[in-house]
Amino acid sequence: MTDGRHRGPSVVLLSGGMDSATCLALASRDARPVHALTVRYGQRHDRELRSAKALARRFSVASHVVLDLPLAPILASALTDPRRRVPSGGVRRASIPSTYVPARNTILLALALGCGESRRARSIYIGANAVDYSGYPDCRPEFLRAFNALARRATKAGVERNAAPRVVAPLLRMTKADVVRLGERLGVPWEMTWSCYRGGRRPCGTCDACRWRAKGFREAGVPDPGA
Amino acid sequence: MTDGRHRGPSVVLLSGGMDSATCLALASRDARPVHALTVRYGQRHDRELRSAKALARRFSVASHVVLDLPLAPILASALTDPRRRVPSGGVRRASIPSTYVPARNTILLALALGCGESRRARSIYIGANAVDYSGYPDCRPEFLRAFNALARRATKAGVERNAAPRVVAPLLRMTKADVVRLGERLGVPWEMTWSCYRGGRRPCGTCDACRWRAKGFREAGVPDPGA
Repeated sequence: MTDGRHRGPSVVLLSGGMDSATCLALASRDARPVHALTVRYGQRHDRELRSAKALARRFSVASHVVLDLPLAPILASALTDPRRRVPSGGVRRASIPSTYVPARNTILLALALGCGESRRARSIYIGANAVDYSGYPDCRPEFLRAFNALARRATKAGVERNAAPRVVAPLLRMTKADVVRLGERLGVPWEMTWSCYRGGRRPCGTCDACRWRAKGFREAGVPDPGA
Repeated sequence: MTDGRHRGPSVVLLSGGMDSATCLALASRDARPVHALTVRYGQRHDRELRSAKALARRFSVASHVVLDLPLAPILASALTDPRRRVPSGGVRRASIPSTYVPARNTILLALALGCGESRRARSIYIGANAVDYSGYPDCRPEFLRAFNALARRATKAGVERNAAPRVVAPLLRMTKADVVRLGERLGVPWEMTWSCYRGGRRPCGTCDACRWRAKGFREAGVPDPGA
């Protein structure tokens, strides 16, 4: 992943958070031209979108598609249903968290697969992480392997040329502190990223996403310019 | 599939064409309550949507979600790009047809998977067909098997309860004539369905979709009330 080999065109799923920003920096180094794809699936605020747009400009992507996908009518989750509470119970979890969005990463990767095949991309970067967020079924290595097996059978590129875009998840086995260290080396502009589940002018500091972020910077011994 | 066993809640991908209408009739018999999902991914006309709505009413579905998904910015295809020609070269094909939409069925099934998990569906009905349209990679049995393998790993329902919604494609090995015969037995209101790639007041009769439809009715020896 970080061996410097050039991988050809890529799609980066860009939410505007720390993980996708780090993926964008990696792809910009290893897999140009980079096509960024941001899917707005009904999150409660636009702050993340502003971050995604700023990051796409900063890394001079070849294209940035922002797709509006109002999933609320078909799904149910804390992230898309304004009646449900933002989780702030802390960062230790036993089971699948309430922020789980049914089939979320399957939907995002399916869209990235279509985008990638249209642009002859060789890889799709997703900031999935199996360490800190191990509770999500669609952030696990076996999910990603199953998606790549599907992509080879689902696409014209896969069937005719054995060249289906391949999902890569370079942060999969990293802690948040590892991500901070990697991003530091790559020059990720952390102040442009957004993590907070709430959409105020400043991060709330108390939701789980803010706690994960703070923990990562603290353990990496790096000050967070976005806090 | 047609053994009359009750399968519990289902999601039906409903485009408004003959195949999805027949799936809707099957699910209404075998897998209630039925939730219909229509995805408007940038087709050139609204005629199909009117058909989908009429069919959903006729079969008294529990819910009908119409999702607007403007894929044109991220994909390239005859069905979504108005600059490309409607294919009318006939119904014999050697390779993947120009109407192929990158990752189309992966995207549709991913959305149906999210919808289905939210509604505790046990099955997702899709009118994919591997006989007449064998050129599409994402209409083949190996694609559908790979998707089901993915769904078991992607969802909370699959991981926690081994109860991921399962994709069923009851028309997969049927010719269009077989579909007409099955639909006749189930009472599918063919006059409510729409097949033509063009969106006029009447079917054009010359595009490939019209030709497939005419061939099916002719071979089944049934008059087409929608022609």
